[in-house]
Amino acid sequence: MAKSGRGGARLRIHVVNNANSAPVYHVTEEKFRAAAKRHPGVAKGIVLTFGTEPEERDANLAEAEILLAGGFNMTGLAARAPRLKWVQSTSAGVEKVVPHIPPGVVLTNASGVHGPKGGEYAMTALLMLNHRVPHFVTNKPLARWDQAFATPIAGKTVLMVGVGAIGSAAAKLAKRFGMRVLGLGRTARPDRLYERVYAPKDLHKLLPKVDFVLVTAPLTPATRGMIGKTELDLLPRHAGIVNLGRGPVIDNDALAEKLTKGELSGAVLDVYPEEPLPASSPLWRAPNLVMSPHCAVDDASAYAARALDLFLDNLGRYRAGRKLLNVVDPALGY
Amino acid sequence: MAKSGRGGARLRIHVVNNANSAPVYHVTEEKFRAAAKRHPGVAKGIVLTFGTEPEERDANLAEAEILLAGGFNMTGLAARAPRLKWVQSTSAGVEKVVPHIPPGVVLTNASGVHGPKGGEYAMTALLMLNHRVPHFVTNKPLARWDQAFATPIAGKTVLMVGVGAIGSAAAKLAKRFGMRVLGLGRTARPDRLYERVYAPKDLHKLLPKVDFVLVTAPLTPATRGMIGKTELDLLPRHAGIVNLGRGPVIDNDALAEKLTKGELSGAVLDVYPEEPLPASSPLWRAPNLVMSPHCAVDDASAYAARALDLFLDNLGRYRAGRKLLNVVDPALGY
Repeated sequence: MAKSGRGGARLRIHVVNNANSAPVYHVTEEKFRAAAKRHPGVAKGIVLTFGTEPEERDANLAEAEILLAGGFNMTGLAARAPRLKWVQSTSAGVEKVVPHIPPGVVLTNASGVHGPKGGEYAMTALLMLNHRVPHFVTNKPLARWDQAFATPIAGKTVLMVGVGAIGSAAAKLAKRFGMRVLGLGRTARPDRLYERVYAPKDLHKLLPKVDFVLVTAPLTPATRGMIGKTELDLLPRHAGIVNLGRGPVIDNDALAEKLTKGELSGAVLDVYPEEPLPASSPLWRAPNLVMSPHCAVDDASAYAARALDLFLDNLGRYRAGRKLLNVVDPALGY
Repeated sequence: MAKSGRGGARLRIHVVNNANSAPVYHVTEEKFRAAAKRHPGVAKGIVLTFGTEPEERDANLAEAEILLAGGFNMTGLAARAPRLKWVQSTSAGVEKVVPHIPPGVVLTNASGVHGPKGGEYAMTALLMLNHRVPHFVTNKPLARWDQAFATPIAGKTVLMVGVGAIGSAAAKLAKRFGMRVLGLGRTARPDRLYERVYAPKDLHKLLPKVDFVLVTAPLTPATRGMIGKTELDLLPRHAGIVNLGRGPVIDNDALAEKLTKGELSGAVLDVYPEEPLPASSPLWRAPNLVMSPHCAVDDASAYAARALDLFLDNLGRYRAGRKLLNVVDPALGY
């Protein structure tokens, strides 16, 4: 690709992977080539640079018009990448990126890459909560035989806090299980996937009526701490909560305390206020809690491929001067 | 009911509950009355006895024509209940009852009562295995942050060992998730719920090709030890196994060893060779294993009601001289 351009300045795209993240997430030249074949012509005449050593990376960054990045510290980006016009994140959550995007540079996120795997895991989490799996897994290391009986999930109510790709994929599955599915988005609106999408102001009135809460909302100034002690206290004692979005949307200390006191049936978490979660966190010791280390919604076989498909779709739009997909509104934070 | 009969000898039905089992399973007079309203006329003119004290129970048993029982030691039943013509078990599994049924007495089981809850829990178990939940719950007490990535369950293959009510309910759900569903029954046959129902002789050829095995088979001379070390060794390393049927169908020591060696992705068990499972069992300490204490397929709100609906349906058939549902073949053991 780097050699196929002709005529005029070639479009320079720099790729940064997070060396501390799992290879599942990495955009490699091989994965890029495979994806480019699915989008014929779009990547023609580009200069694609990787560069993992700081010096090489900085030189390429200085020339790049487009940055394709995952988990990259963008502090000082305006000075480091003066020609930059567009940043495509390979993550859906961009709360750490937004503050560093220079004025006039477009940021797009990877919302949508988690849909199929994330929806399935969300449904798994709701089923686990319904069938008392948190209770069972808490008792196993104690060799404690303590029956807990449940009823089918059909007819029960779930509130989706966040109505994006994961929430919507989960909503479809939950409805197939006969559940009643409510949504909570930034604004109230009708949506055929949900019985109704409510606004944040409705949260307190909804919580006492639900059996489960599924949090997939992005972390923004509006969602930080949205599910605090007050909100957790509004849930019925038999309710369960799932967080697949971002850790700080929930007050995790309050959640650990509720679980320890037996004031909630259970919780399923994939995201935390700090990651990796320190061994000192009370969450590790809280009962009735199923924890995965921020990986449960990420598809092992398709994550990078889906992010690249989105990027190449956007690249075609960019070159044609059309509107990009998944443009982040810096004021909203997603 | 006991007082409404007129003319001729009244039909005597004795009910025995297992005092050591959870109230969920108990047939009470209140539950019986509620169920009888759903089957008008069927329970007219019967004498219904309970009697939990041995003396009272034995006196009633001696007169009973019909026995409705769950988890009751039936040793010496022929002598204790000389007028007995029919035993309705409130359990689906009757391996402990079959040897004590006097010749000429019909035994019917409660197969079917577990369908909705059991199918849902079976699907929960398959999803947990697919999404590496056994790995996550093993790491939590160790405060170990260790990512594991998976792919969606769609397209993967499950072999249902046992094609009764739970297996069939699970098959329907698994197909909705896009899974390939194979069955294994007592005999090979076409069945629209499964890609194909295979015979036990096909087991060894199937195991290397599946991603998951779901065991719901009854315990019979033919199924005891059916999934032994040889069979577990035939499964791919990434595979997972679920047992919701009866503990001794699987060699649980071999399973614990496979899990400890990391030679299987995970297992989900609800049934054990001995129940309650002694604290000395290696299963309690095996990694990548989700264990529930024989309750996961039993519906808290509907178990006794469904068993009573089946009994009253059968009672109507009995009084009309028609063929009963769920008649157990003593030679087959289910």
